[in-house]
Amino acid sequence: MYAIGERINGMFRAVGAAIREQNPEPIQELAKAQLDAGAQALDVNVGPTAEDPVAAMAWLVKAIREVTEASLAIDTTKPDVMKKGLELAGPGSIMNSTKGQQEQLDIFIPMAMEHEATLIALTIDENGVPRDANGRGEIALRVVAAAMEKGLDPSRVMIDAVILPVNVTQSTPGQVLETIRNIKVLSDPPPKTVLGLSNVSQGTMQRELINRTYLVMALAAGLDAAIGDVLDTDLMDAMITAELLMDRAVYADDFLKAYRASVQA
Amino acid sequence: MYAIGERINGMFRAVGAAIREQNPEPIQELAKAQLDAGAQALDVNVGPTAEDPVAAMAWLVKAIREVTEASLAIDTTKPDVMKKGLELAGPGSIMNSTKGQQEQLDIFIPMAMEHEATLIALTIDENGVPRDANGRGEIALRVVAAAMEKGLDPSRVMIDAVILPVNVTQSTPGQVLETIRNIKVLSDPPPKTVLGLSNVSQGTMQRELINRTYLVMALAAGLDAAIGDVLDTDLMDAMITAELLMDRAVYADDFLKAYRASVQA
Repeated sequence: MYAIGERINGMFRAVGAAIREQNPEPIQELAKAQLDAGAQALDVNVGPTAEDPVAAMAWLVKAIREVTEASLAIDTTKPDVMKKGLELAGPGSIMNSTKGQQEQLDIFIPMAMEHEATLIALTIDENGVPRDANGRGEIALRVVAAAMEKGLDPSRVMIDAVILPVNVTQSTPGQVLETIRNIKVLSDPPPKTVLGLSNVSQGTMQRELINRTYLVMALAAGLDAAIGDVLDTDLMDAMITAELLMDRAVYADDFLKAYRASVQA
Repeated sequence: MYAIGERINGMFRAVGAAIREQNPEPIQELAKAQLDAGAQALDVNVGPTAEDPVAAMAWLVKAIREVTEASLAIDTTKPDVMKKGLELAGPGSIMNSTKGQQEQLDIFIPMAMEHEATLIALTIDENGVPRDANGRGEIALRVVAAAMEKGLDPSRVMIDAVILPVNVTQSTPGQVLETIRNIKVLSDPPPKTVLGLSNVSQGTMQRELINRTYLVMALAAGLDAAIGDVLDTDLMDAMITAELLMDRAVYADDFLKAYRASVQA
C-alpha cells in the first residue's frame, strides 16, 4: 500500500506555528520521521489559517525539498495554491484533491497533465456526498471519463470514496468498501483508490483502534493508498500484516522488520 | 459476531493434564474466563492423546455443565465422541465438524437433526482442501444441498472455508474471504460462515497480530462466527471495532465497554 503521511498540516498546532514563524526545522523533522516510518509520500497542507496560502505553500514545499525528494501530496482546494505547490514540488506529485463537478475537473485535470501529477478525486459533487456505493461509483465514473477524454490516463487518477466519521454514520464504512471494490472494474487500467483514513474516527474515542481496523478492511477490499498517521506504529503494523495476508507482500518470518528495512532502503 | 472460545482443548498442556487427572477446576475456570471475555459458545476438544475419547468427552462436558449452560461446540472427527458430547451438552450445541464427503454428511446431518445442533462443515472432501474460492464454494453448495434434502435448515449449517497458515500459502487468505462472500448467496436463508481463526497464524511470528488482522478482514467479508482465543483482549477489541464499522453493532462512544457489558449481562 502506498502510505501518505498526513502530519505536515497547518491544522496541527506545531506545524501551524512553524509556518507562521517560517521555522523549517519542525517541518523537516516531521518529513524525515514520516519517511523513516514508511511513508512513500507526504501530504502538505498549509492549514486553514495561513494569511497568504500561496506564499505559505511555497515556503512549505521549499522547506521540505531541502531534506527529501519524496513525492508530495499538495493538499488544497485552491487552484492557485495547488499550482504553486506543483511547480515547486516537481513531477510525480499528487494533487489532493478535486471534487467531481465538471468545473473543478476542467481546472484540475489539465493541471495534472501539465505538471505530470496524479490527481486525487473525491466522490463529492454539487449535491454533496452520495448516500451509497452506487452514488459514489457514478461520480468516480464521471471523473474517469473526464480524465480519459482529456488524455489523462486513469491510472494517474486516485478515487477517494470519502469516508465519514463512524459516529456520524455507521453505514458509510461498508458503502465505501463496496465502492473501492466496484472502482476496480470501472476502466482498464482502473483508477487507483485512496482514503483520508483518519476521518473515519473524527470525534470518537479509540481513534487509533478505529483507524487501523478500518485500514485493514479497506486494504482487503483493494485500497491502493491511504493518507494517515504513519507515525502510529500499530497502524503501520496492521497495514504490513494486511498486505501479507492479501498476498501483496512476500512472506518473511520477521515480516514487520523486513517491510521496514525495505522502505527505509 | 458469534465468538467461540478455543481454549478447552486437550492439545493445551494444562487442559490435557486436567483431563487425564479428572481435575475439573482448571476446565471450569477456563469456561468462566472465556465467557466473561465475550465467548458465546465454548469449543470442547479432548485432544489427540485421550485413551478413551468417548469417556474423556463425557467427563469434560459434565465438568463444564457444572458451571455454565452456554452452548458447546463438540470438537471431534469421531461420530461416537460427537454423539456422546451432544447427548450430554443438550440442544443448541454446535458440531465441529464434518467434511464435505457424502459418507460423512450421511452420518453427521442426521445427528445434527436428532440433537437439534448446528453443524459446522469444512470445505474439504476426498480430494483435500480446494485450491481456490470456486472449489470451496462447490463443496459448500454440496453440503447445503445435502442438508436441505435431509431437512436440516441451511441456517443451521455453518461453512468453515478452511484457512491455512499464511506461511504455507499466501493465496489462501484472500480465497477464503471470497468464499465467505460467495456463500452469502448460496441459498435463502444462506448457511452461516465460521473460521478456525488461529490456524491462519500457525507457526508464524506475531501470531496475535496476524489473527486479529485476518479476523477484521473476514468480518468485513461477512463472517458470522469465529473459533479463536477470546482471552486475547486485542483480538476481541478488533472484533468489536470491526462490528461497529460494519454497522453490526450500534455506535456508543465507549463502544468497547458497551459491548463487554452487553455480553456479560
